[in-house]
Amino acid sequence: MARGAGTARIEWAAGQMPVLRSIAARFSEARPLEGVRVGACLHVTAETACLARALSAGGASVNLAAANPMTTQDEVAEALSENDGIEVLGRRGEGFEEFSAHVATLASSSPQVTLDDGADLVVSLHARPSGPGDLLGALEETTTGLVRVRRLAAEGSLRCPVLAVNEARCERAFNDRHGTGQSALDGILRATNVLLAGQTLVVLGYGQTGRGIAARARGAGAAVVVCEVDPLSALEARMDGYEVMPARRAAERGDVFVTVTGSRGVLRREHFERMKDGAVLANAGHFDVEIDLDDLAALAESVHEVRPLVEAYDVGGRRLHLLARGRVVNLAAAEGHPAAVMDVSFALQALCVEDLVRHAGEREPGVHPVPAEIDHEVARLKLTALGVEIDALTPAQRDYLDTWA
Amino acid sequence: MARGAGTARIEWAAGQMPVLRSIAARFSEARPLEGVRVGACLHVTAETACLARALSAGGASVNLAAANPMTTQDEVAEALSENDGIEVLGRRGEGFEEFSAHVATLASSSPQVTLDDGADLVVSLHARPSGPGDLLGALEETTTGLVRVRRLAAEGSLRCPVLAVNEARCERAFNDRHGTGQSALDGILRATNVLLAGQTLVVLGYGQTGRGIAARARGAGAAVVVCEVDPLSALEARMDGYEVMPARRAAERGDVFVTVTGSRGVLRREHFERMKDGAVLANAGHFDVEIDLDDLAALAESVHEVRPLVEAYDVGGRRLHLLARGRVVNLAAAEGHPAAVMDVSFALQALCVEDLVRHAGEREPGVHPVPAEIDHEVARLKLTALGVEIDALTPAQRDYLDTWA
Amino acid sequence: MARGAGTARIEWAAGQMPVLRSIAARFSEARPLEGVRVGACLHVTAETACLARALSAGGASVNLAAANPMTTQDEVAEALSENDGIEVLGRRGEGFEEFSAHVATLASSSPQVTLDDGADLVVSLHARPSGPGDLLGALEETTTGLVRVRRLAAEGSLRCPVLAVNEARCERAFNDRHGTGQSALDGILRATNVLLAGQTLVVLGYGQTGRGIAARARGAGAAVVVCEVDPLSALEARMDGYEVMPARRAAERGDVFVTVTGSRGVLRREHFERMKDGAVLANAGHFDVEIDLDDLAALAESVHEVRPLVEAYDVGGRRLHLLARGRVVNLAAAEGHPAAVMDVSFALQALCVEDLVRHAGEREPGVHPVPAEIDHEVARLKLTALGVEIDALTPAQRDYLDTWA
Amino acid sequence: MARGAGTARIEWAAGQMPVLRSIAARFSEARPLEGVRVGACLHVTAETACLARALSAGGASVNLAAANPMTTQDEVAEALSENDGIEVLGRRGEGFEEFSAHVATLASSSPQVTLDDGADLVVSLHARPSGPGDLLGALEETTTGLVRVRRLAAEGSLRCPVLAVNEARCERAFNDRHGTGQSALDGILRATNVLLAGQTLVVLGYGQTGRGIAARARGAGAAVVVCEVDPLSALEARMDGYEVMPARRAAERGDVFVTVTGSRGVLRREHFERMKDGAVLANAGHFDVEIDLDDLAALAESVHEVRPLVEAYDVGGRRLHLLARGRVVNLAAAEGHPAAVMDVSFALQALCVEDLVRHAGEREPGVHPVPAEIDHEVARLKLTALGVEIDALTPAQRDYLDTWA
Repeated sequence: MARGAGTARIEWAAGQMPVLRSIAARFSEARPLEGVRVGACLHVTAETACLARALSAGGASVNLAAANPMTTQDEVAEALSENDGIEVLGRRGEGFEEFSAHVATLASSSPQVTLDDGADLVVSLHARPSGPGDLLGALEETTTGLVRVRRLAAEGSLRCPVLAVNEARCERAFNDRHGTGQSALDGILRATNVLLAGQTLVVLGYGQTGRGIAARARGAGAAVVVCEVDPLSALEARMDGYEVMPARRAAERGDVFVTVTGSRGVLRREHFERMKDGAVLANAGHFDVEIDLDDLAALAESVHEVRPLVEAYDVGGRRLHLLARGRVVNLAAAEGHPAAVMDVSFALQALCVEDLVRHAGEREPGVHPVPAEIDHEVARLKLTALGVEIDALTPAQRDYLDTWA
Repeated sequence: MARGAGTARIEWAAGQMPVLRSIAARFSEARPLEGVRVGACLHVTAETACLARALSAGGASVNLAAANPMTTQDEVAEALSENDGIEVLGRRGEGFEEFSAHVATLASSSPQVTLDDGADLVVSLHARPSGPGDLLGALEETTTGLVRVRRLAAEGSLRCPVLAVNEARCERAFNDRHGTGQSALDGILRATNVLLAGQTLVVLGYGQTGRGIAARARGAGAAVVVCEVDPLSALEARMDGYEVMPARRAAERGDVFVTVTGSRGVLRREHFERMKDGAVLANAGHFDVEIDLDDLAALAESVHEVRPLVEAYDVGGRRLHLLARGRVVNLAAAEGHPAAVMDVSFALQALCVEDLVRHAGEREPGVHPVPAEIDHEVARLKLTALGVEIDALTPAQRDYLDTWA
Repeated sequence: MARGAGTARIEWAAGQMPVLRSIAARFSEARPLEGVRVGACLHVTAETACLARALSAGGASVNLAAANPMTTQDEVAEALSENDGIEVLGRRGEGFEEFSAHVATLASSSPQVTLDDGADLVVSLHARPSGPGDLLGALEETTTGLVRVRRLAAEGSLRCPVLAVNEARCERAFNDRHGTGQSALDGILRATNVLLAGQTLVVLGYGQTGRGIAARARGAGAAVVVCEVDPLSALEARMDGYEVMPARRAAERGDVFVTVTGSRGVLRREHFERMKDGAVLANAGHFDVEIDLDDLAALAESVHEVRPLVEAYDVGGRRLHLLARGRVVNLAAAEGHPAAVMDVSFALQALCVEDLVRHAGEREPGVHPVPAEIDHEVARLKLTALGVEIDALTPAQRDYLDTWA
Repeated sequence: MARGAGTARIEWAAGQMPVLRSIAARFSEARPLEGVRVGACLHVTAETACLARALSAGGASVNLAAANPMTTQDEVAEALSENDGIEVLGRRGEGFEEFSAHVATLASSSPQVTLDDGADLVVSLHARPSGPGDLLGALEETTTGLVRVRRLAAEGSLRCPVLAVNEARCERAFNDRHGTGQSALDGILRATNVLLAGQTLVVLGYGQTGRGIAARARGAGAAVVVCEVDPLSALEARMDGYEVMPARRAAERGDVFVTVTGSRGVLRREHFERMKDGAVLANAGHFDVEIDLDDLAALAESVHEVRPLVEAYDVGGRRLHLLARGRVVNLAAAEGHPAAVMDVSFALQALCVEDLVRHAGEREPGVHPVPAEIDHEVARLKLTALGVEIDALTPAQRDYLDTWA
C-alpha cells in the first residue's frame, strides 16, 4: 500500500528520534498533559510533527502554525491533519499577512503553554487587550526570540515564566557544535563538491559552531585557520592547535571561508580584495549579514551563477564564489539539523511543557533556565538510545563529595 | 549573455583543475602532440572535457566515446562539440548496442594513443583482424581494465605498452584516501542526513579508502570500528587507535556500515541478523556485490523506499536502511570524485600521453608503471597550485645520500 | 663563570614565562605595588621565584614560605635570597611543626595581600586574636583552599575579599586541559615507557583534565574509553567519538587507566578483579584516594617494585602496575605543569595583586571571581607572547551587537 | 627475596613482549633450533635478553656480544649469565679495541645464524681467510648494516642469504611511526618539559617517523609545520592537513624543531639565523649530523647547559636550545623504543632464525625480504596479544578474488 510522502518523512524522522519516542511512550501511559491547550508556532517539518504527536500522546490538544512559510513542508502538514487530527495553519510560500493571521488565530485559541521559534506567539498573546489569558508558561527556542521576551520582561510586561530551551546545556552540546558543525560543511560540499583535503579552511568565530566546523574540517584533511575577536576564544583555538590570525591575513590564505560569529560584516571589502581566485564564501552563523553582500556587489564587475547555489563574483580578475547568497548554508544548501539533533531539542521541549504544567503558578514571570534535572534526563535518555551505560556515584563517593562542597 | 549549462559546468571544473590547466598552457605553447590521433573511451563529464581540451591544446586530434551511458553529461558533450569541435560518441541512457558501435567507430579511427576506463577501446583495437594498427601506447585508469590488459599480455597478444595510471603513487594518494574518503561520507550524509557524532561507524576494509573514511568519520565525532581480513592492515588500524573486531561482532555495534573491500558478500545474512534497528548500509568499494542483496532480500518481510536512495528492509522487527541499492554510494548519492581529484588523475593522463608519444617504440609491449618523474611532476604542479613551496636537497646533502646508497 | 643551579633553573623558567615577564617589565616602570607587603605561602619552585620577582619589581616587599616541604627547591630558595633579597622560609623535607612556624612568622609580618596554595596563610591571619590586620585582600589558587575560605565566609568570619584565581577562565583553559592533560601522560610514559598506540586507555572522569588526556591519547594512537557518572559529560564524551561505558566493563578492556574525577574509590576491588594482566593504574586527579589502595593491597598476594615508581601487585595470577603509589602522576613521575602553564597562573596572580591594591576597600569580604578584564588581559598577553594577532570588532559590529543585547 | 636489578628489568620487558613470549612458548615445545649455533651482535638490553632466551628455548646455543658499549646494560648481562647461562661479551663503556675483540671471538665460534645491528658480525665472518664457515644465513636490523651487506653482495663476496628484518612491513608499521614517533616527543618533553599545546612544531622529513611525530604533536595541541624535499611526501603532508613550507620560512615560525630526514645539515646556519628566541632543536633521525653543529657553534657567542641535556646557544641576542647535542633524542633523552616495539622486531627475528634453519641451503646468497608469511604471522600474534580478533575470507570471497587476480 502506498503511503503519502508526508507520512514517510514523519516515519523516517521518528526513526531518528528515539529520545522523543521514549518520552512519547511514557506520555501516552501517564497522560501528564491531559486537556492542556498547547499553541506552537514552529517550523513545520517532520521532526516538529513528531513533537506535536508526543504532546498529543500526553493528552494535550495541539494547535500549530508555521513559523516560517519558507520551511513549511506541506506534505507533513497534510499527514498531521489526516493521521493525527492536528491542524496546521500555514502553507509553504504564503506571505506575511497570512502568517500574521495564523498567529492571531493561534492566540485566540487561548493556549495554556506556547512553543515559539522567535517569540511571535507569546508576544502576540501579551499584546492582546485581554492579555495572555490562561497562559501558564512559554518555551522559546531562539536567541532572537529570547531578546524579544527579555525586552518584554525588562519593560515589566511579561506575565508568565519562559524557559530558555536553547540555553540548555544539552541543547548547546548538540545544536551548535554537532548539528551546525556537521551540516555547515555538508552544505558547502553539496553546493561545491570541493575536496577539503589540502585546502585551507578559514573559520571566522570560535564559538561552539566554529569549534565543530574546525574539528570536522581538520578530520577531512583541511588546514584550519581561525579568526576571532575575543582573546580567550582565540587562545583556546590556538591551544587546540589551529593557526589564529586576523581576517585580513587569513583572507590571503583561505580557500574556503565560513562565518559563524553572530555579528555582521565579518567578511567585507578589505577581505574580498585580498582573497585568492576561486575562494568559496559561506555563512553558517546568523542571517545573511555576516558576509557583506553590498561590499561584494560593489567590488564585482559581474556576477553569474556557476552551479545551483553558487554565484561567481568577478573581482579584479579573480572569482569569489558566494554560496546561497550568504544565507545560512546548512539550511540553504543542506538539510539543516539532522533529526538526531532535533530529537534532543524537542525532547527538552516536551519535558519543559510537562514541567510548566506540573509547576503551574510556581515560577515568577521572567526568563528561566531549563531545570538541570530536565537537562540530565534528556542526556540520560539519549545515552540509553545510543546504547551507552554509565556509572553512578557510590554512597561513599557521594559522602566524600558532600564533605567537599 | 547566457551561457549553456555544459559550458558553465566545464568552466567550474576548469577552475578546480589548476594542474591540468598549467599542463594545457604548456601544451598550447610546445604542441608536443601535434597531429597525434587520440582515442578516449571515458566517462563524459566536465572534468573529462578539460582533459580533452588539454590534449587538443597540445595538438592532438581527440575522439571521445562515452565509457558509461549512465554517467554521460549530455550538455558537456554538446559544449565540447560546439566550442571545441570535439565530437563525443554516445548520449546518456543509450544501450549496450550503441555503446559497442561507438567503441567500434573509435577503433576504426586508428588512434595512436588510447585512454580507457575499463580497457574497452584497447581490447577492441587488439581484436580487429588488422590488429591495433598505429597504436603507440595506451593508458588505463581502472583495476578492472588492467586485469583485462594483463590477461591479453599473459596470452602474448598485447602489442603495445600500457601505462597503469591508477597505480601511480600520486593517484593512490588522492583518489582513494581523499577522493572516495570524502565523497563516500558525503553520499551517506546526502542520502540520510544522519548525525555522525555519537554514532558507531563500521568500516569494512582498511585499505586507502577505508583509512580516508575512518579518519573523516572520527573527525566528525563518530566512534569508528574497523573490520579486516588482512592481519597487517588490521594491526595498522589498531595502531591508529581504532577498535578492530570481526564483522559479526561489529554488526551488533554499528549504526552506519561502509564496505570498501573490493570483495563480495562482505555484509551478509549473518551480519544482517545481528544489526540494530535503524542501521544504515552503504557500499563505497566495488560494484554492488559487497553487500549481499540476495541475503538481504531473503531476510526481509518487506521493503520500501523511505527517502530517495534509501530503502528500508524490515527484518525481524528491525529496519535496515540500504543506500543506493548497494551501488557505490559516492557516485550514486553524491557527485563522485571532487574535481581536484580528477585534476591529479587527468594531469597524470595528459603527461602520460606526452610520454608515450615522446618515447614511441622504446617500451616493450606490456603493462608499465607511470614513470616516477611524471608522478613527481604532477605532485610538484599540484603543490604549486596549492601555493606550497618546498625545499630542494643541497649539493652536500645529495653527496651524503649518494654515499649511503 | 659558573652560575648556581638555582639561578639556572630560574632563568630557564623565566624564558618559558613571557607573559609574566611582560607584566614584570610594566611593573618595574609603573611600580603599582610600591611599599605593599605581600605574604605568599606557595610551592617554592623556579616559576614561583619568577612571580616573587615580578611582584618585587612592582615595588612590593615579598615574604615567602614554602606551602609544601616536599616540593621546595632549595637551590631556588638560595638563589632568591642571594640575587633578589627575597627570603624564603622553609627547606625541603621539613616537618609539619616547622611549616606551622613559618606560616606564623609570615602572618606576623602583617601582609596586606596574601597568596595561598591551600589557604593556610589567610586562615592563619584570620585566626589571630588581633584578626587579619591590614589585609586588603587575598588570592587562592586551589579548590581545597577555596573550600576553606568559603567555610570562613559562611561562618561570617571572613574579613577581606578573596579572588578565586583557579576559577578564572584562562586558568581553566590552561591548567587542567593542557597542563595536566600533557603532564599526566608524560608521567605515565616516564614511569613505564609503554607504547600507547594499540593500547586501550581508560579515562575515568571527563572534566577538563579528562578531555585533555583523551585527546592526547587518541593522537598517540590509543583507543580511548571514557567512564563518567554525569550523563551530560558522558554524552559529550560520546559525541566526541569516544566509547563510554561503566567502569566495571572498562576494567576488562583497558591497558592503561587514569583517574581524574576529584572523587574517591573510583577504581576499587570490583574493578581490580576484572583487569587484565599488565594493566597500568595512574591517578591524575586528586590526592591518592581515587585508586582505592586498601582494596588493592587486600587483593594482592604480593607487591614489589618493578621499575622506579612502578609497583606490581600480584592479583590472582595477574599483575596490576600501580604508578607512584596512586599519588598524582604528573607531579610524582613527571615535572608537573610546564612553565608555560604556570606563566598564565602567575600572570593572573600578579594582575590580581595589582587589582586588590588598586581597589582596596571597594570589594565586600567574600570569594570573588577574577575580574573578566584580567582574564582577557592575560589571554591577550599570552597571544602576543605566542606571536598571534587577532581582530577587533569594528564600530559597526559593536553597534550591531549592542542592538541585540 | 630480593631479585637482581637485571632480573627485574628482564621480567618487566618480558611482560611487555607477549608476541615473543608466545613464540618462546612454542619454541620450547617444538625445539626447532635444536643444536643450532646462533651468534648475535646486538644492543644488550632487557628486550634483547628476552630474544636470547626465546632462541635458547628453541634449542639454540646463543653467543652474544654488545653491538654498542654505550647501550649495554651490565645488570642485564649479569642476569643472562646467572639465570640462563648465556654469556655476554662486552660491558658498558668499553673501547673500540675490546669491541673488535668480542666480535672476533664471536666469529671464531662459527655461528650458523647471525643477528646483527650494523653487520659487524656477518662482515667479520666473511673477512676471515676461512670465510663464513657453516653460516646458513644472517639477519640484519639496520639500514646502515644493509648498505654494508649489499656492498658485499655487489662485489660478489656475499656467501649466504641475509634477511632484511628492518624492511619487513610489520617492522615499518611499528618502529618508525609508532616507536620513534612516540619516543621522540617523549624525549623532548623529558628534556624540556615544554607545553606542546599552542606551540608550533616543525617536523623536517615526512617519512614514517615524521608522520608519527606530526600526528602525536597535533593530538597534543601543537600547530604542525612540515618541511620536505620530496614533492610526493610534501603533498601527502598537505593532504593530511599540515602546513608545508621551506625550512627557511619554517625557521621563523617554529618553537620546536625535529629533524627526521636521514640526511645531513637539515638545520643549518641559514635556519639558525632566522629562529625565534627560545627555539628548541631536536634530532630524531640519523646520528648527530641532521643539525649542523659546526654552523651552530660558529654562530654562537656562548654556550651553556641550562638543564640536563639542554644547551643554550646564544645567537645574536636569541637563545637556541639544542637537545642531547644533536644526538638521537629518543635514545638520549628518553628510553628509545618501548618494549612493545621491540616485541615485534624480535618476534620477526626469532621467526626468521627458524626460517633460515628450516630452509637452509634453499636461498641464493643475497639480501632477501622477510617472507610475507612471517610478517603476517607476527601481525596475527600481535593482534592476539592485543586481544583483537579479525575475520577470514569466506571460500566464496576467495574464489571471487582469485577470479580477479
